[in-house]
Amino acid sequence: MPASPIRKLTPYADAAKKSGKKVFHLNIGQPDIETPDTMLNAIKNIDFKVWAYTPSQGNASYREKLSTYYNKLGYDIRADHILVTTGGSEAITIAIESCLDPGDQVIIPEPFYANYNGFACMAGVEVTPIPSSIETGFALPEIAAFERVIGPKTKAIIICNPNNPTGYLYSLEEMEALKELCLKNDLYLFSDEAYREFCYDDNTFISPMQLEGMEKHVVVFDTVSKRYSACGARLGCLITKNEEILEAGLKFAQARLSPPAVAQIAGEAAVDTPQSYFDNVIAEYTERRNLLVAGLNKIPGVYCPNPGGAFYVVAKLPIDNADRFCQWMLEAFEYNNQTVMMAPATGFYSDTRLGEQQVRLAYVLCLDDLRNALECLEKGLEQYPGRTQ
Amino acid sequence: MPASPIRKLTPYADAAKKSGKKVFHLNIGQPDIETPDTMLNAIKNIDFKVWAYTPSQGNASYREKLSTYYNKLGYDIRADHILVTTGGSEAITIAIESCLDPGDQVIIPEPFYANYNGFACMAGVEVTPIPSSIETGFALPEIAAFERVIGPKTKAIIICNPNNPTGYLYSLEEMEALKELCLKNDLYLFSDEAYREFCYDDNTFISPMQLEGMEKHVVVFDTVSKRYSACGARLGCLITKNEEILEAGLKFAQARLSPPAVAQIAGEAAVDTPQSYFDNVIAEYTERRNLLVAGLNKIPGVYCPNPGGAFYVVAKLPIDNADRFCQWMLEAFEYNNQTVMMAPATGFYSDTRLGEQQVRLAYVLCLDDLRNALECLEKGLEQYPGRTQ
Repeated sequence: MPASPIRKLTPYADAAKKSGKKVFHLNIGQPDIETPDTMLNAIKNIDFKVWAYTPSQGNASYREKLSTYYNKLGYDIRADHILVTTGGSEAITIAIESCLDPGDQVIIPEPFYANYNGFACMAGVEVTPIPSSIETGFALPEIAAFERVIGPKTKAIIICNPNNPTGYLYSLEEMEALKELCLKNDLYLFSDEAYREFCYDDNTFISPMQLEGMEKHVVVFDTVSKRYSACGARLGCLITKNEEILEAGLKFAQARLSPPAVAQIAGEAAVDTPQSYFDNVIAEYTERRNLLVAGLNKIPGVYCPNPGGAFYVVAKLPIDNADRFCQWMLEAFEYNNQTVMMAPATGFYSDTRLGEQQVRLAYVLCLDDLRNALECLEKGLEQYPGRTQ
Repeated sequence: MPASPIRKLTPYADAAKKSGKKVFHLNIGQPDIETPDTMLNAIKNIDFKVWAYTPSQGNASYREKLSTYYNKLGYDIRADHILVTTGGSEAITIAIESCLDPGDQVIIPEPFYANYNGFACMAGVEVTPIPSSIETGFALPEIAAFERVIGPKTKAIIICNPNNPTGYLYSLEEMEALKELCLKNDLYLFSDEAYREFCYDDNTFISPMQLEGMEKHVVVFDTVSKRYSACGARLGCLITKNEEILEAGLKFAQARLSPPAVAQIAGEAAVDTPQSYFDNVIAEYTERRNLLVAGLNKIPGVYCPNPGGAFYVVAKLPIDNADRFCQWMLEAFEYNNQTVMMAPATGFYSDTRLGEQQVRLAYVLCLDDLRNALECLEKGLEQYPGRTQ
């Protein structure tokens, strides 16, 4: 499996920190937002005597409660359409293993979440990337581009919506186009909705679960990691109305016995988190995004689209090579004894050349830190020996 | 993947329960023993505000603490020889994926834990079984039997010690013989030690980690599931001194981001569980085993070896077919409105015929329940239409 550029840079970040430099970590998707009390109190109030396995598909009470959450969104599902997984990661692996055979192909618009590639690789599945472009804000590539690469071995399309790494939020028109494409070519549509909660500017999130006629085709990957800032819970789920996928998925779930038990208790309580929690978080993320995108576009030579969701942006920088630049920022640069760690976008493209001038920034730090990070980045770009313009 | 017989029987058990019958569940490895307060209190006392990812290899403090536990056993390891996993299950998958390529072979003495086969299958790895025999109490098959099946694609041997499903505890002589075999043929030795704590009659547990000269060959699978009756924690680890395996394993660990965070906090506290907890548990299991083995051997036509560890026995019954018998016990039989659920041993053999007259019983119920279960089983065998002698 290819190592992600974030992992490659970690030793440099550690060295920078050891040297006394303050490193602003805009490289990873670990939010600084507090986990809601609904979850934390549920952990503190556990009252079991035996920390036992749960059913492989997850606790019945948790799946029931989760179904109420999804049905408020209009998914129209039953508890038994949900397979509880160990993080969103396991929903991805189980879906790939259940729906595709070794040698099959999955199409993914790129840039994409690097681990899709790792999980596909482990299942012997080939990833066919289709480039999206920073010029269109990373909108869905034209349908003709998908049609050109669909072959007899193509079985599925993965989208991440709102997108990691780009933050792009797919429109209803784009989702309808994907629906037609999947129905016409009998493809599964895997919808990674880890960032569903985080849509800005009154944009509406559209899930393929809300579109009629796709019942046999849609598999949703979800997780509590970002929704409740509970990445360490390792609690996700796979949702589908396709009984065959549920049946195959359950076998993989049974092989690993059980998802985490305490996380499910906390996840069940989390469904009752008051709306005010999300209102505050979304207000905070919106301010951060506005600050970051405006700040980036003010830096000479930098271009950053304004994404509709998630908490990432991908920006184009006037640099020769994103890996070299990000490493240089950690190793060789400091401004007021501070620097910034970013994820080179090369790690999100199959063809790394497409990401050579791009970086992903996660706005998981407070506004003051983001201001300082922007200043650092501007100074860094001024001094970087590999600047291109 | 083949469905385990336990899963196949679950619908019958559910139906039996619904009909008002009391079902003694001797079929699964979920102990009734209470989780120690060290762990439960650690959960209740969590004080983080953000339920964050931990490092992919596990928290440094947990790995340090774990290393003290293993070094008391004489493993002579460092914290960085430990990769924390999501349950023992993930240690198995990561080891197989890291050490074997698709098409490679792994040798496993059978009967064996059914999920080894599922995990091998997912990695495209072929399982070569070598039968052990109830007549020898399921001792290690003779080394010549291994040598006969070792070929150019053979890369590893998996043992489970003490054994699930047989409870057999390998002797120092057997472990030394396996060591010579692995060194001579350059094979990895995967040692599943989930039941390490549970050895009876002053028998000594021997890990290949304690044998000199195997540093590059040994990979241990471990879990807190059985040690602390914490199956729902989903916390295990892979231990090896082979740097290449650690490096490859870390990539798989990074793809799924992090093991569960709360479980690691509890697991770290658990290392300080007082010895009195284990003394009590082992005394309880010893009594149960003694009762069960003696009781089984008193039933006409039944033979059960007396195993040295774990909390399972495999018994030979005077029946035509274990799957049919176990299903019949749930569906068609009752004694004082009670019955017993057992695991047909067919699910633990590659060649199911070898297990047709055998069942696995887990002594995870109290002595009174075991007495009642034995009485039920005796009456059931008297009435079963497919009785063979």
